[in-house]
This record gives sequence, C-alpha cells and structure tokens, in this order.
Amino acid sequence: MKAARLYQYQHRPVIEEVPEPRIAGPLDVIVKVGGAGLCRTDLHIIEGQWQSRSGVTLPYTLGHENAGWVHEVGSAVTNVVPGDTVILHPTPTCGLCRACRAGDDMHCPYGSFPGINTDGGMAEYLLTSARACVKLDPRTQPKDVGALADAGITAYHAVRKAAPLLYPGTTCVVIGAGGLGHVGIQCLAALTATTIIVVDKNADALKLAEQLGAHQTVVANGRHVDAVKDLTDGNGAEVVIDFVAEQGAEKDGWEMTRRAGSYYVVGYGGTVNVETIDIISTERNVVGNLVGTYNDLTELMVLAQAGKVTLHTKTYPLDAALDAIDDLDNGRIRGRGILVP
Amino acid sequence: MKAARLYQYQHRPVIEEVPEPRIAGPLDVIVKVGGAGLCRTDLHIIEGQWQSRSGVTLPYTLGHENAGWVHEVGSAVTNVVPGDTVILHPTPTCGLCRACRAGDDMHCPYGSFPGINTDGGMAEYLLTSARACVKLDPRTQPKDVGALADAGITAYHAVRKAAPLLYPGTTCVVIGAGGLGHVGIQCLAALTATTIIVVDKNADALKLAEQLGAHQTVVANGRHVDAVKDLTDGNGAEVVIDFVAEQGAEKDGWEMTRRAGSYYVVGYGGTVNVETIDIISTERNVVGNLVGTYNDLTELMVLAQAGKVTLHTKTYPLDAALDAIDDLDNGRIRGRGILVP
Amino acid sequence: MKAARLYQYQHRPVIEEVPEPRIAGPLDVIVKVGGAGLCRTDLHIIEGQWQSRSGVTLPYTLGHENAGWVHEVGSAVTNVVPGDTVILHPTPTCGLCRACRAGDDMHCPYGSFPGINTDGGMAEYLLTSARACVKLDPRTQPKDVGALADAGITAYHAVRKAAPLLYPGTTCVVIGAGGLGHVGIQCLAALTATTIIVVDKNADALKLAEQLGAHQTVVANGRHVDAVKDLTDGNGAEVVIDFVAEQGAEKDGWEMTRRAGSYYVVGYGGTVNVETIDIISTERNVVGNLVGTYNDLTELMVLAQAGKVTLHTKTYPLDAALDAIDDLDNGRIRGRGILVP
Amino acid sequence: MKAARLYQYQHRPVIEEVPEPRIAGPLDVIVKVGGAGLCRTDLHIIEGQWQSRSGVTLPYTLGHENAGWVHEVGSAVTNVVPGDTVILHPTPTCGLCRACRAGDDMHCPYGSFPGINTDGGMAEYLLTSARACVKLDPRTQPKDVGALADAGITAYHAVRKAAPLLYPGTTCVVIGAGGLGHVGIQCLAALTATTIIVVDKNADALKLAEQLGAHQTVVANGRHVDAVKDLTDGNGAEVVIDFVAEQGAEKDGWEMTRRAGSYYVVGYGGTVNVETIDIISTERNVVGNLVGTYNDLTELMVLAQAGKVTLHTKTYPLDAALDAIDDLDNGRIRGRGILVP
Repeated sequence: MKAARLYQYQHRPVIEEVPEPRIAGPLDVIVKVGGAGLCRTDLHIIEGQWQSRSGVTLPYTLGHENAGWVHEVGSAVTNVVPGDTVILHPTPTCGLCRACRAGDDMHCPYGSFPGINTDGGMAEYLLTSARACVKLDPRTQPKDVGALADAGITAYHAVRKAAPLLYPGTTCVVIGAGGLGHVGIQCLAALTATTIIVVDKNADALKLAEQLGAHQTVVANGRHVDAVKDLTDGNGAEVVIDFVAEQGAEKDGWEMTRRAGSYYVVGYGGTVNVETIDIISTERNVVGNLVGTYNDLTELMVLAQAGKVTLHTKTYPLDAALDAIDDLDNGRIRGRGILVP
Repeated sequence: MKAARLYQYQHRPVIEEVPEPRIAGPLDVIVKVGGAGLCRTDLHIIEGQWQSRSGVTLPYTLGHENAGWVHEVGSAVTNVVPGDTVILHPTPTCGLCRACRAGDDMHCPYGSFPGINTDGGMAEYLLTSARACVKLDPRTQPKDVGALADAGITAYHAVRKAAPLLYPGTTCVVIGAGGLGHVGIQCLAALTATTIIVVDKNADALKLAEQLGAHQTVVANGRHVDAVKDLTDGNGAEVVIDFVAEQGAEKDGWEMTRRAGSYYVVGYGGTVNVETIDIISTERNVVGNLVGTYNDLTELMVLAQAGKVTLHTKTYPLDAALDAIDDLDNGRIRGRGILVP
Repeated sequence: MKAARLYQYQHRPVIEEVPEPRIAGPLDVIVKVGGAGLCRTDLHIIEGQWQSRSGVTLPYTLGHENAGWVHEVGSAVTNVVPGDTVILHPTPTCGLCRACRAGDDMHCPYGSFPGINTDGGMAEYLLTSARACVKLDPRTQPKDVGALADAGITAYHAVRKAAPLLYPGTTCVVIGAGGLGHVGIQCLAALTATTIIVVDKNADALKLAEQLGAHQTVVANGRHVDAVKDLTDGNGAEVVIDFVAEQGAEKDGWEMTRRAGSYYVVGYGGTVNVETIDIISTERNVVGNLVGTYNDLTELMVLAQAGKVTLHTKTYPLDAALDAIDDLDNGRIRGRGILVP
Repeated sequence: MKAARLYQYQHRPVIEEVPEPRIAGPLDVIVKVGGAGLCRTDLHIIEGQWQSRSGVTLPYTLGHENAGWVHEVGSAVTNVVPGDTVILHPTPTCGLCRACRAGDDMHCPYGSFPGINTDGGMAEYLLTSARACVKLDPRTQPKDVGALADAGITAYHAVRKAAPLLYPGTTCVVIGAGGLGHVGIQCLAALTATTIIVVDKNADALKLAEQLGAHQTVVANGRHVDAVKDLTDGNGAEVVIDFVAEQGAEKDGWEMTRRAGSYYVVGYGGTVNVETIDIISTERNVVGNLVGTYNDLTELMVLAQAGKVTLHTKTYPLDAALDAIDDLDNGRIRGRGILVP
C-alpha cells in the first residue's frame, strides 16, 4: 500500500509502497483510512522537535489524526466489525492500568501513539486496537470528521477542563484561531456561557472566529495584551487557553490571566518563564493539556453530529501529501488539511 | 505604644513609640497583640522585594501574622467583644465582593494586608476588622498559635487544595521543612493517606519531619531529584509542594513531578522556567498558592486544638525584634520566631 | 404605606395601611419596591404548610421575591446608595458564619427570609440588608426582573449544581414548565450541551418550553414515564430536575432517573418514598435544592442582561393582590405574576 | 469440585460436586479460591430479595467476595499469570463502554456479578476475567483479605465519595459497626480529619469501633437520634453513612443529617420516606452507594498493606458453609465470616 514516511529529520517525507499491516494480537483492529489530518505537530516531528521524546525508529509512517472504516479485527474484538465507520482515539491503550481505569487514556504508560511513536495513518491502512475505535453513524464521511481525532479532541479536552471555571460573568481568552482554536471556540460556546475573546494575528481567522461564537476579537499586533486588559476592566481573563504557546504567545497568555485565574497551555514551541513571586502573589496556575480521553472524543462527536462543532477543512489525495505539508508550512490552509488515501 | 517599623528598604527596622490605632469605621476591631510571628517574608520586605507589589508608604509597622485579645470594637461589630481571644486572618476583607462571597478572602480587591501594605502587628495594638477575627477558646495563649495566622494558613491552604489528588498509593513531596513546611507535613498526615517524602538541606529539619509524619526523607544534596525518582519507581510524585521555590528548588520541584501531576508553588524568590512542549507532553500543572481563606484558618484551628498540628516556636520580647530578625536571617531559628509585646 | 398582609392561615390576606419600615442597624437598607413576584409558595404559606417551619408571628406582610430602588441606607452600608436599582437576594445574611464565608448564603443560621419569616415585599417599602442587594443597570425595570429574585435564582441554582453531570450525550428531564421551570430550561440551554426533555400537563407550557430550548416535550398524561424511557434507550435521564415534586411527580421523577443518575427536588408538597435496595442497587441520588447563593443571583443577572434568560410575566397593581392570588390558584397566569406597588 | 449452591429461594444451599469452570473467552481467568467472604447479602439472596433484580437461574453457586490464586488464563490475558495471588473486583466488566472508560466499573451494563447473577466463589475454582484481578504481594493470604473484595470496597467507596465533605470541624455518623462499618470507620480515620460518631445496638461492636478510630459512640437504644444531636450542637452531622438502612435506621439516619448535609445509603432492606418540603427546606441529599470501582479496590489494598485497615474475621472450611450461614443469621460472627475451600 502507499504511505507517507519520514526517513530523516529535517528532510521531506517520502510517498512509497509498504506492506499492509497485519493483525498480530487478539485486540488488534486494522482500519482502512478515510481521512488523515495534517497537523502542525507533523511539521514539528519533521523538524526533530519530538525526536528525543517519541523515541521512534525511522523510517516510519506519519499521521496521528485518523478516521476510516474497520477492515479486519483480532479474535477478541467485540465492539466493532469490518465495515463499521470509525474515528480513532489517537492513543490505543492497555485498558488495565490505573490511568486507563480512571479514564485518562492519554496517560496509559503502555499506550502507543500511531503517527508519533509508531506507524500512523497517512497510508491506506492503519493498525490500531479495539479500545481506540469510536463507532460512528455509517453515513458519516471519515474525511469530514478525521480532524476531530486530534485537533478536535485536544481543543475539547482543554475546554472541558476549563468549563467549571467559566460561569456567567467570566471571560475566556482563546489565543490562536487555527486548526485547534476554531474547534475550541465552538466548544466554549457549546459548553459555557462565558464571554469569549479571540486573539490571532490573522484578520481572516478572526472573522471566522466571530462566526463560530467569539464575542470579541483582538488582532495580535503587539498591543493585544493591553487590549484584552481593557476589555476586562483591567483584570485579565479568568481563563486563557493558548493554542499557540510559542513566539511570545506564552508570555502574553500569562499576562492576560487574571488574579486567581488559570493559563491553559495547549500549543507548544515556546517557554514559560515566570517569577515564583508572580505566581504566588496572584495565585495563578499554569495548566498542561494533552490530547484527551476516549470519552472526550465521544462527547465531541455528539457535538459534531448536533452541528454544534463544524470543521473547516481542505482535502488532498495522499499522493499530494508533500504539497499539503508545504501549504501548511506556508499558511495556505484555513482550518485543517486532510489527506484522503 | 511600641512598634517595629520600617523606614527604608535594605535598612534595619526601628523600635519606636507610635500612637495607638483608633476605631474609625463601624466594623473596625482593635486587638491587643499577644504574639506576632516573624516570617521570611519580613526579610524579603526589608530587602525591597515587595516594594512595587505592596505599594506601602514608609515608614510602617511590620508583622502580618498575629493573635491576641480584642481590645475595642466598632459600632456594627457583632461577632466579638473586648476580651475575646482571637487569631487574625491576615487579610481583612470587604465581605461584599464576588471573591468574599465565594469564600476566597485572599482575592478581595478591597482587602488590606496589615504588615504588608498597612501597619501590622509587631506592636502593642493592631487595627483589623470584624471579618478577620477567629474567636478562640479563652485558654489559648496567642503566642502559642500566632504562627498559624500566616505560616499555618498558607501551608494548610496548599495541602487542602492538593488533598483530592492524594488518594492512597500516591506520593506527595514536600520541599522545605521549615516554618511552613513543618505545618504542611502535619496537615498532609491529618488530611490524606498519601506517602509523604520530605526534602530539605538540613538534617535536623528532616529529623523533625519524621516525627511529624514524613514517611521518607531526602537530603537536598544535589542528588535529591534522582533520590525522589528512585523512591517513586522512576515516575516522580503526583504532587510536589514547594515551600522554598528559590535557589533551584523550583527546577527540582518540577522535575520531581510525575506525568499528569501538579507542582504547587508556595515559597518564592526563584523563577519557573519550563518549555511548553514539556508542559503539554506530560500534562503537568503549576499551581499558585496564596495565604488561605478564613474557613481554612478555622479548620486549621480545629486541627491545632485536636493536637494534630503543633508549632515549634521561639519567643522574643518585642524589644528584641532586631535580634529575632538576625537569628532568622542566619538560620538560628528552628520552627517559627514569635514576638511578644 | 400599603401592604398585603396575612392575618390567619387558610384565610385571604388583607390589603391595609401599615407604618413604613425604619433603619435600625448600621447595615440595614430600605428598598422602595418596584416589583414583587407572586409564587406558589405564597399559596402554600396561606394554606399553612410553612406554619411550623417559618415560625412567623401573624399578621405579617407577604412577598419573598423583590426588586426596586434603594430608598435609605444604614451608617455602615458601602455597596449601595439611595437611588440605586437593585434586585434582592431573598435571604439577608450575617456575613460572618461558616456558611456565609463559604458562599452558601441560604444556609446562614442567622439569616432572615422576608416574606417567609418576617415582613416581605408586597408593600411600598421593604427592609433588607446591604448583603442582599445586587446592583443593576439603572435602566432596568424592577418589575421586569423581580421574578428572578426567587423563581429565577432557585431554578438557576439547581441547574448550576447539575451542570457538571450534563456533558454532551446526556439527557436532562425538566418536570414542570411553569414559573421556575421556564427559567430552568433557559439556564440548561445556556450552561450545558445536554438534551433537554420537558414534561408538563399543559400543552401551552410545552409549546413555550420548545421556544425556550427544550429538544423534546412530553405531555404528562400517565404514560410519560414510559415516553421518557423510550426517548433515552430505556435508561432514563442522567439528571431529572423536578420543579413540581407533588401529586406523583416525585415518583415519576425518580423512575425517570437513570442508573448512577441524580433526581433534583426543587418543588415540594409530595413525599419521596423509595426502597433502600432500589437506591443502592442503582446508585441513584436524591438532591435537595433551596433558593441559591448571592453569586448565583449575580450570574443569573448576567444571563438575563445578555438576553439568554427572559421572563414571562403578568403585572398587577398591589391593590389587586387578591385577584393575582386567585388567578395563580386557578391556573390563569402563564409565567409569573408580579405585583407593582 | 465442591461448591455451595442455591437450589430454591427460602431453602438452605447445598454443598455438592460440580464440574470445574473452563476458559471460554480470551480474557477469561480461572482463580483457585483461597477465601470467600460470607455476607448479609447472601442471606438476602436466600430469602429471595434479589430474585427479580439479579435474574439468575437456579441452581447456582453463591459467593461474591473472593480472593485466591490465578489458576489458568485466556489467550489475551496480559496482566496476570498462573500462580499470582489476587483479590477480585466483584464485577468483571467489558472495558469498552462509557462507564468502564470513566472508571465506574460497577455501572458497566455488560458486567457480571459472580455470586449474584452467575456462579460465585463458594467453590474450589471461580471463573472471572482479567479486568477483575488485582495482583497482590505473593505473601498475602487470600483468606486474610478476601472480605475486602466486597465489604471492604463498598465501605471504602462510600467513604471516598464523602471525604471531600468532611473537612476538619465536621462530624460523620456511621450507623452500624459490623462487617462493612468496621472497615468504614478505619477508612474515615485514614482519609479525613472529621469527628467520627458510631451508632450500633451492640456494645461489643461499639468497643471495637473505638479501637478502630471512633471518637464517640452511641448505643442505638431509641434515644440515639437525640444523642447524636446533643453531640453536634443540635444540628446533626454533615455526613451520615448508613451501613444498615433497614428497621428504622433509614429514618434515624435522615434525621441525624444536618442542614445542607448528605445521607449515604449503603445497607438496604428498608424504605426512605421523606416529604419533599423537608428535602428542599434544608437542602439535604440522599446518596446511593454500590460496591466500588476497581481503583477503589486498589487504593483500599494500599491502606490494608500499610496496616491502616485491618479485618476481623472468622474462618470456616467450605464444607461448613451452612454452619457459617447459621452463625451469621444468629449474630454469632464478629466481623466477617470467611469460607476456605
């Protein structure tokens, strides 16, 4: 089958023929990929930013955001059958450890992360497990929902964690209205009655943000921290969700956070650098966010099927994966790029 | 009356005669000070570290950790009468804002902080308000409990916030077994069934920690991060409470924090410096902590009166305030120094 | 001034002249009533259902749901001045007890409940306290928002407590779409993404419910428990909020509650009667709900001013209070009746 | 193998030879039983109280509280191997439904409950699943810990749910100091700093309660509700955990519950009967409790291995099961009866 594989860090991936995956364990599931999302993390992987963290052996197949149809199942699989339409939780897990038994799938020490530390979904077929499959209405098109498998779940997870803090009268700042941010805004509007302020450099992204539920938008032009303060009586916001967290956003995000408030880090690439006197004298928090739970993904699919979360996507055939990567790297994709094998 | 007053940053305070405070508002309370705790924050104030944050006008009277007897009350005070033994919440508050009405006294925007931004308790009398008074059993000696008014409440507040994370089988690391830490250890033992590991440079402090409830102790000798990892199957602790947060402790504390865990900052003086990829790939949190609520203080007094939290103190007459400050600065006080006017 | 006063249980109240209230304490506030809501609880008071619980001495003035303008303030009042437009939290509180300091205003043991256990707002002037006043935009008409002071806060409080259970994919059943229920439906739509099923006997009330956010409606015709089961795959709802809780609704509500779900009691008049084996074998809960906190009321006012919660009311002059009571008793009021002095 | 089997409701079980269970599915595990606890629920099963709820077909083997050694495992089992010492979660679950993925094992709609609705552990071998096995230190004797598999987990689960309400200064009443209650008292002492009041008819049980951590004990002699009120300033307790919930305890428990407090039902056999005006005017809750989660059981094993929870047991050979049942029925067992095959 065809697959987009990385041979060397800081070099472009290669589209090539590889053998199809095979069922090895009783809970294995092979999925025919219907849509594989392209993510800024793919760029970071190619750059080598995950090299020491993922420990993957090159070459391997990229693609950590996948949906498709079940193709073959192992002997102990009971929840899906070949032909089922599925979206895949990004981290197939053991199901037996403390984290799995508490629902914290992304913290299973025995889980894998296809597309990060093993072969992913930029291919015709993907090996995953029964525990990663969320069964969908058969009329759903995998390419239409694939981006919810990582961009969506990650945005939803952060919003759901923040939601209890966001009672009426509060403000939530969203930094970055791109692939994750545009889902995050819709999740905030669906789950809370907070006032949503969106900050982005790009005027088009801010226009989209308004259509998706932003109450106010602020252009990231260097005076945006003050602008957010002005919109919040000088206090800043109870919650800031930072989908960028690099190139200074991580400093701005902290400064926009109100006394007793919380700064949620979702994007990455930068460095949080704060004096401890500043942390304690205002009792502010920095909250880490990583993907999300299986149940998060099922809840997000409910929002999607109710039309409360919609995705803005641009599809490419798998053969054009390198074009898609170039387009992403050069800011030519609005919303999310999706590879269709 | 006599008072210990600061005239100039980076100069020693002065013991001098000043007029007694007077009742001005209907909810004012004047307390005859029975014990005023001496805190590392007093050293930081003298150094000037709080100059821009407190906005206080010099000269003013130090002392933000106070207990005593009610001396005089304003016309609308209903909860205490002259003669009552009281410990004082450090921040007299308005009682009417959102924060006060949610119990978050330390975030009242109209509160004062005697000893930080207005005259404090290193004096014979202190002006506070009805809302700051916690009435005590008349047999209680203010000098015995005074240190609970700031060191105690601050340690208790952090532990109470962390307690829901500390189910049986978890580990909590306490960095620093001094004035705050030695209370924090006892609170952890009273409120949770977690395994308590205490890290300190000082062997005597670690001995005391063991008597107060520490299950394991680690000397901060440069190999202590590895030592904590060894004690936690290589994972680190679900919760780290850092009562130091300067001179590298803030780096160690983060590194000792397990995946999906939380690092509680209580001490200050240093800088948290963490890459955002490190925050998100492990989903760890940095949690700010500031003093505590009025109800925190009442709960802590219940623990104290049940003998579950005891203080190690060294008393000085108010006249010897400068000696006490020198002793603290030179590490000659075990537990907490208390000034008795 | 004129007031509607109850002289004898099971007899109609009397409209008569009484002296105006006077400022007695430093935190007292006298409000010129602009709108006093009429509530089913007023009927229950007249019937004598609260006689043993309220302990009020007859005669007294009814009216526990009030808004208006500040007329006069005590010497220690700092948060409002004469002329301010205000809505009143129903229970003026002490501000100093554990409950007040935790924000649980309705559990202050020293609070009063004007209109229940002391003179209320069906009069030209009402005596309350600084702590009960929520200041409003001066353009607000008290008669338009008065019903939020009790019907509104009570519905909001129950919904806010239930909201964390109502993630996407869950169902919430609302029993009763009258004075409280029609606010509850709007609060659910504003605070959650749950599926809302409304049950009521009255077809007009169900039509209104649909306009306010109900996803499905069920006529309470004797087959409604089965109808709710059918709409929930035979399981019942994660949360049932019962604004009736008499005449069998309290039995239906429990039966509509799913395994591991919670049945919220808001209305009253009936009896919960459940075998303990039924409670434990399904791990269901019965949750009591009483008015709400001061902060609940401020949050609800944010929703109201954003147009997310609107009231359906019918106004009467104070002189026509007895007509209003008759209309309520005979089901001739849609939404809430409001007396305007 | 030998097994204790029920042939007819309201008749004594029979000890007879039956075929050993066999591995059928890839996740099946067969355990050689080392200790099977005898529970009041076994008496209730024999009486027929569970007949309509469990839907089991007679005859079947009793015993829902089991520990032992792994004997044989299915092809997909990865967490245990033959020879491992294990305690068994009482409800083997699917691992794939929403409840399992949220950690709520006892609400898995596809789980079984050996000893309740399928063959249990009063036999030489028991069929369970990989997901039910908690691996123990090989030095642990199954007969010493078996009772934690149901009595223990159930008491722990209720205490853990209540613990966040039990801050210092609160009171928790425990009704019933028998098999479950004596574990509950120890869990309360380990997890909270609340004041524990234990109510029981039996003076010996109250003596044991004091040794296990009760601060006060009250004989259930008809004046015990007043006695609890007297010990709590007339208010009742913030939390009441009722391990009896029959024969009037369920009425007493509610009356002992303070305003804004919660009444936890764990035992069964009686009926909760409360007017809704009584629920809402005090905002009290009734909380159902059922067994516990797998993680609850692992946490409890941590407490047990730290010596914080110890069991009082009386062992019988499996052949003497009928004697054990008679002893339990006639109040001749202190703590828990354990059958050893």
